[in-house]
Amino acid sequence: MIPLVALLTDFGAGSVYVGQLHAVLARLAPEARVLDLVHDVPPGDVEAGAYLLRQSVPHLPEACVVLAVVDPGVGTARAILAGRAEGRSFVGPDNGLLAPVLGGGDARRLENPALLPAHVSATFHGRDLMAPLAARLACGLPLADVGRAVGPIPLAGGPRLANGVVVGRVLVVDRFGNLVTNVPATLLARLEVPAREVRVRAGSAFVEGIVSTYADVPSGRALAYVGSGGHLEVGVHGGRAADLLRLAPGAEVRVERSRP
Amino acid sequence: MIPLVALLTDFGAGSVYVGQLHAVLARLAPEARVLDLVHDVPPGDVEAGAYLLRQSVPHLPEACVVLAVVDPGVGTARAILAGRAEGRSFVGPDNGLLAPVLGGGDARRLENPALLPAHVSATFHGRDLMAPLAARLACGLPLADVGRAVGPIPLAGGPRLANGVVVGRVLVVDRFGNLVTNVPATLLARLEVPAREVRVRAGSAFVEGIVSTYADVPSGRALAYVGSGGHLEVGVHGGRAADLLRLAPGAEVRVERSRP
Amino acid sequence: MIPLVALLTDFGAGSVYVGQLHAVLARLAPEARVLDLVHDVPPGDVEAGAYLLRQSVPHLPEACVVLAVVDPGVGTARAILAGRAEGRSFVGPDNGLLAPVLGGGDARRLENPALLPAHVSATFHGRDLMAPLAARLACGLPLADVGRAVGPIPLAGGPRLANGVVVGRVLVVDRFGNLVTNVPATLLARLEVPAREVRVRAGSAFVEGIVSTYADVPSGRALAYVGSGGHLEVGVHGGRAADLLRLAPGAEVRVERSRP
Repeated sequence: MIPLVALLTDFGAGSVYVGQLHAVLARLAPEARVLDLVHDVPPGDVEAGAYLLRQSVPHLPEACVVLAVVDPGVGTARAILAGRAEGRSFVGPDNGLLAPVLGGGDARRLENPALLPAHVSATFHGRDLMAPLAARLACGLPLADVGRAVGPIPLAGGPRLANGVVVGRVLVVDRFGNLVTNVPATLLARLEVPAREVRVRAGSAFVEGIVSTYADVPSGRALAYVGSGGHLEVGVHGGRAADLLRLAPGAEVRVERSRP
Repeated sequence: MIPLVALLTDFGAGSVYVGQLHAVLARLAPEARVLDLVHDVPPGDVEAGAYLLRQSVPHLPEACVVLAVVDPGVGTARAILAGRAEGRSFVGPDNGLLAPVLGGGDARRLENPALLPAHVSATFHGRDLMAPLAARLACGLPLADVGRAVGPIPLAGGPRLANGVVVGRVLVVDRFGNLVTNVPATLLARLEVPAREVRVRAGSAFVEGIVSTYADVPSGRALAYVGSGGHLEVGVHGGRAADLLRLAPGAEVRVERSRP
Repeated sequence: MIPLVALLTDFGAGSVYVGQLHAVLARLAPEARVLDLVHDVPPGDVEAGAYLLRQSVPHLPEACVVLAVVDPGVGTARAILAGRAEGRSFVGPDNGLLAPVLGGGDARRLENPALLPAHVSATFHGRDLMAPLAARLACGLPLADVGRAVGPIPLAGGPRLANGVVVGRVLVVDRFGNLVTNVPATLLARLEVPAREVRVRAGSAFVEGIVSTYADVPSGRALAYVGSGGHLEVGVHGGRAADLLRLAPGAEVRVERSRP
């Protein structure tokens, strides 16, 4: 079977940083195919990267290696992890990015001196440490050879439910202007409120009810729905919610019962 | 022969939407290669997507499958098509996007229950319905198994020629600031005016004559030419036409005889 | 061995121009794999393209073909080159882009009539002339068949060292807001000043000392360092230097002794 390495980064598509990951993988794992999964994680936003990774895993083939690099702590003492869960392997910094996928899996800290290149830049461990490790795993390196088993650092932040209110934030604005939040459908379910009685507040805007898709509301109207990634999203039918509601990543989102 | 799937979308390069198309194809058609043809179609602009697809087809290898997703009507009753023309196969929404390439071809409406996954999101049929269909076609599924033959919905909009004037619009602004219009060279030919006697009006700017390339005019000067996609374009030698003429996609473009 | 073609352009990721390079390569060299190395070279900036190419070559596998297209002179008489150096092959316009990699190599001017397609657009020689040539080289065409040996046109611009001052410019702003300059570490070394006694002036900002990585300065503080590409960069720990210092590509950068 042809090995597959999938990439998730905050480097931006077309950047030389993504290109050099490809170059290193082509050099060290020439048989492997490389798949660009995500490159537009908001720069340095570990929670957004973790969400995009978590929701994408079920769509990936089993037996692939995912190289995930959202690494604002490059150059500090943060560790590098390799792990295995749900039939796939993962490589990335130990900063919470991999925690949601490696929760029940086997995680190892990169320590084996044979896996540490002689020359490592101070600012691009994705290229100099993580891509070579992903290449080795794609070529059959046993996970146990990476280093000792550790518990990954948990993901900081995340939405919370208290007093009947879910408080989260906008994680990502997509190219259509939709606001993707960090609130999973599973957390909405814990509100125990029927979908049409839910009120979503995003910035100064209120949306009443959670619907299925854009066409469920009139053109130009804002709507709240569970997006294709399984999280609450706010959009505008035929328009750009981010522009019309003037919201950006980081904006607070609150969900509660409409008529209490 | 290695099957090839080419992607054309309005999702944006580096987005998780493109990545999940790649993931689904890698899972369902692991032997196929995937080619990123276009991902910067202006969001929801079916005519721009149709133009970029139509001009790219001759450059693609024969026997490839093109998965084209510009789908502002996702979640409505619009059908999904698969078709075959010019030696290539095509999959996409039935909203005009595929009409220019499937004009003389065999188009089928997705109806076969065996091709409909159990779980389909309400907002991402590209991932949940169209990519699996493209994967099946790449693996050899006969087109006739998709569903009954239909005539694709024609592409709305488009330039018109009346009273000696071609009226079109700016479809795309490229990274160099060039204004790519929806006016094909074949329509210009129907004006029956020599190239140097053609006047192009784009917004409030006038350009006299149609030339071959940037270097045909002095540096800093606007020019009209037939671009590499076979359509009329307006550029500025050594500059950015979109900025200098303050024009964006949608701006009207008129072409007529300079001295009538 | 599977042939590999790496692409470096200023077309933008997701653009139809990149897609058509992929399409032509898939048609003419169906066995080859294609690697997207860089597509966000600032439009028409030959020096930035040359820098991104030069720093990426060592990471690429040997025996690959690099197709590099930053071609503001398309449509003029500038030649097209193919060359060989450091175990890799290169194709691109003869405008300085390839000069740093082909310095000691074998460079040929595209002249062989058998390699000139019948139909060539006036504005997209990357697709119509250079991609077919790269495909032929990837399929085994001997370099000597391309045309006669020439000396590549040297790269214009570049930093200079005079009177103890290095004067360069910002080449690229990356997605994290870091300012990547055209000043290589090798030129800094010729200043013969200890790293902590170096003063870097970027626009109206001064940075004292050259450090290793972001964490070497307090959060929010600007720093100067040698980036992963081997050039001087200016960043802000946990922030965006381009925004905070209000600098863009082209801004002058001066490096000298802090206390003379």
